Amino acid sequence: MTIKNYIEENKERWLEELFEMIRIPSISSIPDHKPDMYKAAEKWVELLKKAGIDKAEIYDTPGNPVVYGEKMIDQKLPTVLVYGHMDVMPVDPIDLWDSKPFEPEIRDGKIYARGADDDKGQSFIQLKAFEYLVANGLLKCNVKFMVEGEEEVGSPNLGAWCEEHKEMLKADVILVSDTGMLARDIPSITTGLRGLAYWQVEVTGPNRDLHSGIYGGAIANPINVLCDMISQMTDKNNKVTIPGFYDDVEEVSEKERTLLNKAPFDLEEYKESLDVKAVHGEEGFNTRERTGIRPSFDVNGIWGGYTGEGAKTVIPSKAYAKISSRLVPNQDYHKIADLFKKHFESIAPDYVKVNVEVLHGGQSYVCPIDSKAYEAASKAFTEVYGKEPVPVRSGGSIPIISTFEDVLGIKSLLIGFGLESNAIHSPNENFPLEQLYNGVETVVSFYKHFTA
Amino acid sequence: MTIKNYIEENKERWLEELFEMIRIPSISSIPDHKPDMYKAAEKWVELLKKAGIDKAEIYDTPGNPVVYGEKMIDQKLPTVLVYGHMDVMPVDPIDLWDSKPFEPEIRDGKIYARGADDDKGQSFIQLKAFEYLVANGLLKCNVKFMVEGEEEVGSPNLGAWCEEHKEMLKADVILVSDTGMLARDIPSITTGLRGLAYWQVEVTGPNRDLHSGIYGGAIANPINVLCDMISQMTDKNNKVTIPGFYDDVEEVSEKERTLLNKAPFDLEEYKESLDVKAVHGEEGFNTRERTGIRPSFDVNGIWGGYTGEGAKTVIPSKAYAKISSRLVPNQDYHKIADLFKKHFESIAPDYVKVNVEVLHGGQSYVCPIDSKAYEAASKAFTEVYGKEPVPVRSGGSIPIISTFEDVLGIKSLLIGFGLESNAIHSPNENFPLEQLYNGVETVVSFYKHFTA
Repeated sequence: MTIKNYIEENKERWLEELFEMIRIPSISSIPDHKPDMYKAAEKWVELLKKAGIDKAEIYDTPGNPVVYGEKMIDQKLPTVLVYGHMDVMPVDPIDLWDSKPFEPEIRDGKIYARGADDDKGQSFIQLKAFEYLVANGLLKCNVKFMVEGEEEVGSPNLGAWCEEHKEMLKADVILVSDTGMLARDIPSITTGLRGLAYWQVEVTGPNRDLHSGIYGGAIANPINVLCDMISQMTDKNNKVTIPGFYDDVEEVSEKERTLLNKAPFDLEEYKESLDVKAVHGEEGFNTRERTGIRPSFDVNGIWGGYTGEGAKTVIPSKAYAKISSRLVPNQDYHKIADLFKKHFESIAPDYVKVNVEVLHGGQSYVCPIDSKAYEAASKAFTEVYGKEPVPVRSGGSIPIISTFEDVLGIKSLLIGFGLESNAIHSPNENFPLEQLYNGVETVVSFYKHFTA
Repeated sequence: MTIKNYIEENKERWLEELFEMIRIPSISSIPDHKPDMYKAAEKWVELLKKAGIDKAEIYDTPGNPVVYGEKMIDQKLPTVLVYGHMDVMPVDPIDLWDSKPFEPEIRDGKIYARGADDDKGQSFIQLKAFEYLVANGLLKCNVKFMVEGEEEVGSPNLGAWCEEHKEMLKADVILVSDTGMLARDIPSITTGLRGLAYWQVEVTGPNRDLHSGIYGGAIANPINVLCDMISQMTDKNNKVTIPGFYDDVEEVSEKERTLLNKAPFDLEEYKESLDVKAVHGEEGFNTRERTGIRPSFDVNGIWGGYTGEGAKTVIPSKAYAKISSRLVPNQDYHKIADLFKKHFESIAPDYVKVNVEVLHGGQSYVCPIDSKAYEAASKAFTEVYGKEPVPVRSGGSIPIISTFEDVLGIKSLLIGFGLESNAIHSPNENFPLEQLYNGVETVVSFYKHFTA
C-alpha cells in the first residue's frame, strides 16, 4: 500500500492517538506535573508497541523518565536511532489561548494545542512513518526510539543516561523531528543549532519591603538596580559587554554568509507578522545572521515588587530576572555561563547583594551536509515538496544534540516540519495536518533512500 | 477618672474592638475586597456611636464609602475634625508574615497584623481619646470624624466628597494620626509630607511571545528595552533625568537644612537595620535630606516574561512596570505626571510601543509650627513623653492632606505614633501597645491644651 493510501485509511485513528498524547499535560518545568511525565511515558510505550516496536520500556532517571524501544531486524543492517521528547513548555499566559492548551482542537486544518508541534506532533511523524514501514513489510534497517521528558528544561539527565546505555543506543544516525522548515513551500534541513546558557539572577536591597515614602530616595531600590545592571549588559551597538563573550565565536566566512543569505527572507513581511516597526539586533549583521550565526542576550522573565492591580508604594527587598544567551559554534556554554556570572557579580554596586544561579545550558551543533543521511533526507524532501531543501542554521537550541555527538559519537539529522506560524512555546501553538502527513511521507522516503 | 485609670479599666474591651476592625481585610487596591470596605464602614459607625458620637453615617462615593460622625456640643466652641482611614495595603509577599495578617496576635507587647498601625491602630487612638473625654464629661469642643476607605490608593474620591460636604465638615483643625515618631523616646510631629506621582508603563515588542532561539538577537525584547528605559531615568548622580523635573523643587534654606539635621539619626544603625552595606541616593544630599526635602524615583513593581520555576526560553510580547516619584513642596503632581509620561514616551525606541498610564498622585504639604493646634500638640507630647517633640519633614505622602487645605481651607495637624519598626506596608506590620496607650493619653492632653 502506498503511504498516501495508508495515511488516508488510518488518519482518524492516528489523530485519536496523537490527541490522547497531547491531553497529558506533561510540562517538564513544573514539578507538579511529574506524574504526567509517567503518563506520557506509558502512552509512548503503548504507541510504540502498537506501531511494531518489539520491546519498549520506561527507564527512570534522577529526573523524568526516558522511553526506549527498538526493532532489530538484522545486526548487520544500518540502524536509525529516532530521538523525540514527550515534555512540553508551560502554557502561560493562559488567557491568550483561543482554546484550552491540553484539549486539542482542529480549526482550519490545524491542530491547536500545547505540544501539537513541539514535539508531540513532530515525534508522532517519526512514529507513524515507522508504523507504515513495518505494517507494509518495507523496513530495511534497524530502528530504535529514544523519547525523553526533559528537553524543554535542557535535558539535564539524558547525557548520563546515554553514557550508561551507550551499547544499547549504537546507531548510524540519529533522526530528529523537532525543528522547522523555512515555509510550507520551502523545505529546509537544519544544519546548525545555537547553544544556550540560562541564568537566574537575584538582586537584594534592604532586608524587607519598605515604604517608598519613608525610604524613597535614600535606599537603593533593587528593581532600579537590576534594570541598570541589565542595561549595562549590552552596548549601543547591541553587543554583549561581558568581557570575553565573543572570544570563541566562529567567524563565518564571506562565502558562507552569502549562502546563508540566499535563503528566502522578506524583512517587511517578517516585521509585519510580528507587528514591529523595526527589527533590532547586533550592529553589522542582518536579521538572518543575527539568529543564525551570532549569539544573543535576552531577559526571559523579570519580576519584583508589587505587580497586582492598582498602586502600591513599595521599595521591594528583592528583584529577579531570568536571562539567557543563545550561543554559536565554538562558544562553550560552561565558559559563557561562568563569564556572565563573574561579570554580573562584578558590576553589582555595593548597596545591593547579587546572586547568580546557572539554570541550564547546552552546546551548539553543526551538521555536515555531505553525509549519506543528509543526502537521503534531501532526496526525500525533494520528492514530497517538489523542491530541494535549503540547509539552514537555526537560531534555536536542542542542547542534547551536541551531547549525543560527545557521548555516543553519532551525528544527528534534523528534519523538522514546524512552520513559523505554529507558535511553539507561545499561546495557540498549532500544527497543520498537511505538515503532519507530508512529514510522514518525507520520513518514509528518507528510509527508502537511506537504505537504498 | 484619670486617663491612665480609664485605660487600665477598659483596655481589654478596646483590644477586642480593635481586633474586630483589623479582622476585616479592607484592602482598597484589590476590587474583590469592596464588600470588606462596607463591613469596615459599618464597624466604624458602630464604634463611633459606642464612643459617644451623636450621629454617624456611611456615605457612598463612586469608590469606597466614607464614614462621617459628629458630636456638636456648642456651635460657638472650636471644632476638631478627625481624619483617619479604614483601608489597608495588600499583604503580599504573604509567606514572609510570621502570623496571618488579618488575625491579630499580641507578641512581645505588640499587635501584629496588617493595619495594626496604618491606620486602624492609629485612628483607634483618636476614637478612644474621644470616648474618654465624653465618658468623663471632659469634652470642651465639637468633634467630627471623617474616616475614608481609599487612602492607600490615593483618596481618588474624598476630595469631591469634601467639596460636596464642605459645610458639614467646617472645623478649626484637622487632626490626623497616620504618621510616625522618630523613635519611641523621641516624640516628633510631622510638619511636611511629600507628594506622589504614580504611573504604570507597558512596553510592547512583538505581537506575541516568541521563541528566544528562533528570534533571539533579531527582535527587540521588551524586558531588555524596559530596563534600558528605566535605567535612563536617573543619571550617575542619581538625579532624575526628566527635563523640568526639578524646576519647581523648593530650595530649602541652609538654616532649615541645619534644623532638619538636628533630628537624631544614626547612619550605621540605619544601614544595619536594613542590612545594606551602603545607602544610595541623590548626590549632594544626606539620607535625611533625601527623604525629607528631595524627590525620589522608584520602580515599585516590574513584571514580564516567564517568572515560574525553571527555565523558559521566551521573548515576551510585553513588559510592565509600576513607577512612582515622591514629590516635594511646589512640585505639582499633575505637571510631574505629565512630564514623566512625555519623557518616557519620547525615549521609546521605534522597535517597541510604549504606553504610560497615570495611576494616581497627590500634592505635598507643609504644616505651620506656630499655630495653636501645633502648640497644643507640642505640650501634649511633652507631658506624655517627657520631651518636646521635634518637627519633622516626612518622606511619605498623604495626598489627601493637601486636598483638605485646598478644598476645605483647613490645616491638618499630623500627630502620629508609628515607629520605624512597625513595618507598615510590609510583612509583620505591628503596633506596640505602649504606643497605643501613650497615643490616647497624648491626644487627650492635646484636647486639654487646645481648648484651654
